Amino acid sequence: MIETRPVEGIVPVVVTPFDDHGEVDLTAVERLVGFLNSKSIGGLWVLGTGSEDMNLSYEKRLRIARMACAANAGKTPLILGAGFFAMEDTLAFFEDTKDLACDGYHVMPYHPLLSLERLEWFYTELADRCPRPLWMYTSGNWARPIPPEFVARLKGHPNIAGIKYSNSNAVLAGKVINLAEPGFQVITAVAAQLLASLAMGARAHTSSLGSALPEAMIAVYELFLQGDIQGARAAQRTLVEFLSLTATCAKTDNFLTGAEEKYILSLRGICGPRMSSYYRELTEREQAVVRKALSLYPGIVPV
Amino acid sequence: MIETRPVEGIVPVVVTPFDDHGEVDLTAVERLVGFLNSKSIGGLWVLGTGSEDMNLSYEKRLRIARMACAANAGKTPLILGAGFFAMEDTLAFFEDTKDLACDGYHVMPYHPLLSLERLEWFYTELADRCPRPLWMYTSGNWARPIPPEFVARLKGHPNIAGIKYSNSNAVLAGKVINLAEPGFQVITAVAAQLLASLAMGARAHTSSLGSALPEAMIAVYELFLQGDIQGARAAQRTLVEFLSLTATCAKTDNFLTGAEEKYILSLRGICGPRMSSYYRELTEREQAVVRKALSLYPGIVPV
Amino acid sequence: MIETRPVEGIVPVVVTPFDDHGEVDLTAVERLVGFLNSKSIGGLWVLGTGSEDMNLSYEKRLRIARMACAANAGKTPLILGAGFFAMEDTLAFFEDTKDLACDGYHVMPYHPLLSLERLEWFYTELADRCPRPLWMYTSGNWARPIPPEFVARLKGHPNIAGIKYSNSNAVLAGKVINLAEPGFQVITAVAAQLLASLAMGARAHTSSLGSALPEAMIAVYELFLQGDIQGARAAQRTLVEFLSLTATCAKTDNFLTGAEEKYILSLRGICGPRMSSYYRELTEREQAVVRKALSLYPGIVPV
Amino acid sequence: MIETRPVEGIVPVVVTPFDDHGEVDLTAVERLVGFLNSKSIGGLWVLGTGSEDMNLSYEKRLRIARMACAANAGKTPLILGAGFFAMEDTLAFFEDTKDLACDGYHVMPYHPLLSLERLEWFYTELADRCPRPLWMYTSGNWARPIPPEFVARLKGHPNIAGIKYSNSNAVLAGKVINLAEPGFQVITAVAAQLLASLAMGARAHTSSLGSALPEAMIAVYELFLQGDIQGARAAQRTLVEFLSLTATCAKTDNFLTGAEEKYILSLRGICGPRMSSYYRELTEREQAVVRKALSLYPGIVPV
Repeated sequence: MIETRPVEGIVPVVVTPFDDHGEVDLTAVERLVGFLNSKSIGGLWVLGTGSEDMNLSYEKRLRIARMACAANAGKTPLILGAGFFAMEDTLAFFEDTKDLACDGYHVMPYHPLLSLERLEWFYTELADRCPRPLWMYTSGNWARPIPPEFVARLKGHPNIAGIKYSNSNAVLAGKVINLAEPGFQVITAVAAQLLASLAMGARAHTSSLGSALPEAMIAVYELFLQGDIQGARAAQRTLVEFLSLTATCAKTDNFLTGAEEKYILSLRGICGPRMSSYYRELTEREQAVVRKALSLYPGIVPV
Repeated sequence: MIETRPVEGIVPVVVTPFDDHGEVDLTAVERLVGFLNSKSIGGLWVLGTGSEDMNLSYEKRLRIARMACAANAGKTPLILGAGFFAMEDTLAFFEDTKDLACDGYHVMPYHPLLSLERLEWFYTELADRCPRPLWMYTSGNWARPIPPEFVARLKGHPNIAGIKYSNSNAVLAGKVINLAEPGFQVITAVAAQLLASLAMGARAHTSSLGSALPEAMIAVYELFLQGDIQGARAAQRTLVEFLSLTATCAKTDNFLTGAEEKYILSLRGICGPRMSSYYRELTEREQAVVRKALSLYPGIVPV
Repeated sequence: MIETRPVEGIVPVVVTPFDDHGEVDLTAVERLVGFLNSKSIGGLWVLGTGSEDMNLSYEKRLRIARMACAANAGKTPLILGAGFFAMEDTLAFFEDTKDLACDGYHVMPYHPLLSLERLEWFYTELADRCPRPLWMYTSGNWARPIPPEFVARLKGHPNIAGIKYSNSNAVLAGKVINLAEPGFQVITAVAAQLLASLAMGARAHTSSLGSALPEAMIAVYELFLQGDIQGARAAQRTLVEFLSLTATCAKTDNFLTGAEEKYILSLRGICGPRMSSYYRELTEREQAVVRKALSLYPGIVPV
Repeated sequence: MIETRPVEGIVPVVVTPFDDHGEVDLTAVERLVGFLNSKSIGGLWVLGTGSEDMNLSYEKRLRIARMACAANAGKTPLILGAGFFAMEDTLAFFEDTKDLACDGYHVMPYHPLLSLERLEWFYTELADRCPRPLWMYTSGNWARPIPPEFVARLKGHPNIAGIKYSNSNAVLAGKVINLAEPGFQVITAVAAQLLASLAMGARAHTSSLGSALPEAMIAVYELFLQGDIQGARAAQRTLVEFLSLTATCAKTDNFLTGAEEKYILSLRGICGPRMSSYYRELTEREQAVVRKALSLYPGIVPV
């Protein structure tokens, strides 16, 4: 059985701050990790899809990994992303980061068309060669569907620590949650599904929204933990309504919500609003929409 | 604001019993409705997709409607299905059943390709002409996707009582649940999502499984209502595991789980296992699988 | 080997004319069949999806079948549609129309979710009981995908005459075309794919556009037959450009192009522009768009 | 108007030979380019999806680009692939290869979820900065759908030379073919669609099959050009039947057909059968299947 720290609670997907020249703003990475560590988070999901990982060069990802791990310094369980399209890049990244202070690696299989048989080979091979426990990582939007049976087959591997299963299909998510056991952790995702996931038994939940509004997600989690279902439902509903109000066109254009989140973080003084190349930032009108939503739901950001 | 009885709790989709000649077994319909009414159910969903409705001639549906309404005699809120592909058949069915004791009608828009604009016209026109309150009805599998915004637009119609929103996407289901208010009811669906739906605020939940195993679904509902989340989760998990064990090929062949449900009902002495034409029944091997699952989870059917 | 007349050339899907009260305009059905028979067509596809079949009551379909067969009087191969969602309706329709002068029946399996195994049972059972040769009928938009291997398995049935394979995937269409042989005919579909289908070896091609603009489709076919590929390509391109110009919102709303086609037929004096219930007709602005396209491509309708 | 050599005829997607250690076999790359240049090909599509591009590190792609361009030495129009997930990698690749002898670059937008607005920004930005004419490149399998209207909007850019439109939807392909004009070239794809594409007016057609069996594709093309439609159809049918016979599980596992193609090339003495990491090679049984198909269709490989 694999030994690794348990990840329990809200797990922010750490967004990537950039400066005005498109370079990674390492100072802001440090500030963001510190900010998140000042909240009751359960883990840090570094270089996930919400970090714009696939639009970052290998070198940029290395710099982010180094700074995030240094800033965290082992305080919170930190899972580092090593998902590249080319498998040899993933293996090289393992090697180049093997001395950093992280609890494990996550890898999303970005190839959309490999068979499940090849994916099984892929994860087994990576787990065999990974210098730390490996997390599987799947998203209904970015990767080919991974059914619960696939997860069940791989969970016994001695170096596979768990899975982050991001899927808005609650039936599938429920089945994967039921696969959790000592030595195999399951993290669910999607902010609007937080309460549903907890009710089905999830112990950890991630979202890039957790970078910008960790308190609002932690509120749902803690109320649920206290057995206050009505309170948790009200907090979840507030979150969903806030998200509906801020569903700008940037989300549609980028698919990611990184632009919205970094704009909120810029209002909170943590990092700037910049996005990498093909992703776009909020227009002034969209910024006003976000500010208005924040003013309508003042509890979302605690004073 | 529309006045109609509230539907709260587990709402079985009433399956259709047949005799060995393919005729509707009306005595068994009566027995099934009586059986369900002996449990703490919240409503009866008659002639839903789980009843094999679309594979039944107009005349057969009429006979089922008459017997189900007569057997229920107003005891439990009963929503009667009038979903046909041809709109004029739906209107004729309203007329031919307008004197039956039902609380409302549900109509699924079976046309998979109409635009949302035409669907809005369709539901408005039907609601205007429906002799009782109309329920919208959608399923991720059978009908074109209906987004929460569509539901929000139509919920103000003076003769639209609510919606049965069957969709395994928890984000969408959550948004629709949030649209419920006095005068507009939301029923969710899919047995494996029962607890997730309740946690998000659903007050009623349907499944054709509720015909065969109403007690197991009611257990989850009542534990949740009592605030026993751990208990509800355990009951839900038992249900999911039982369903995984009984996921025979008949489900894949039929898409419906009616064959499994009617086989269980036949073991319980309520009706026979027959299916209508292109749907198939369980093989002997599959029957053994179901019997074994029932023996492994004896609590599923209370003694 | 099945003996039935070969269907070669352009096969209009006969649209359904209505009067202002929503009743089938039988005089116009007769006029339309006569109009089409005055052109060099290869067959008549009656009660296909383009006829709004699924939005017509059983009785209306019977009336259309009777009039179309009487008006054609055996002149051109006529394949009659008996596709209902409920299998027993299809069997009843066979019985009620068995004395009409048609060459065969076509049935689309409207159930979107049956397995291929059940579909095979379905077609075999129908073929066994069909009073005339049966045509399989599939459309990428309306029915579950039918792969070439499925067609290959069923084509040997002694009472299956062929298939109408409507699919814009040219690889699949090509494979199905290659299955044609004496005793098994393949008709392709989609007006914009006419030339591609012919090049791959198709001998017959259908479209509801063939009801309104048979000459434009016949032109492509005859030029191709004469070996004038350049001419056929020019005629096909004209057709595609004309269709792009007339792609009104009615097509999106209805999915069907029946509204456009019946409007053109009304300009040609064949029938009125009415559609059945949930389908909508062209707005005045859309009518102007169609008239303008006709004036820009005057050759589309020969003087 | 952009000035670039016209690409007409069969355009092999050059597969990537590897040695037994997973390194690119540069000698075999040279041999393969020479082999293809000894046939009447119309162009070379280097580092397309069929080359396993996305599973190759940046450095490996650089080595392939250098050798392919050197081996071709300008003989045949050569379009070089610069499609990376991270946009900055594409720009770096432009810079690092700008002195190579290629006619242009192709870039597939691998991000599956960007909006068309962002894709338009992406292609415009790349075209502005590309040291040679840029080709758009899309595939129904690998990239988000690109509609004909999108192509029409971008084709006027002074540095966009054309598009490779790989889509088995013949209606869409036909519309894009119709967009070709002096200064904007359209290349179609998918071996089984070759004849259909030519009939609709395509002047160039690619496939990775063109690496292994260029003669069989050239045969269809030349017969078509000579106006021998029957002959072209027979040659196309032979090709489709051969492909059906060799549709091994490796294709399903890899999605790519590179394993089959490199095995055929190994039989022809051009390169070895190795694949990169997560792709798999043919089993011995599958190799026997390919050899048997080659013996059944001896004309596929000319003696």
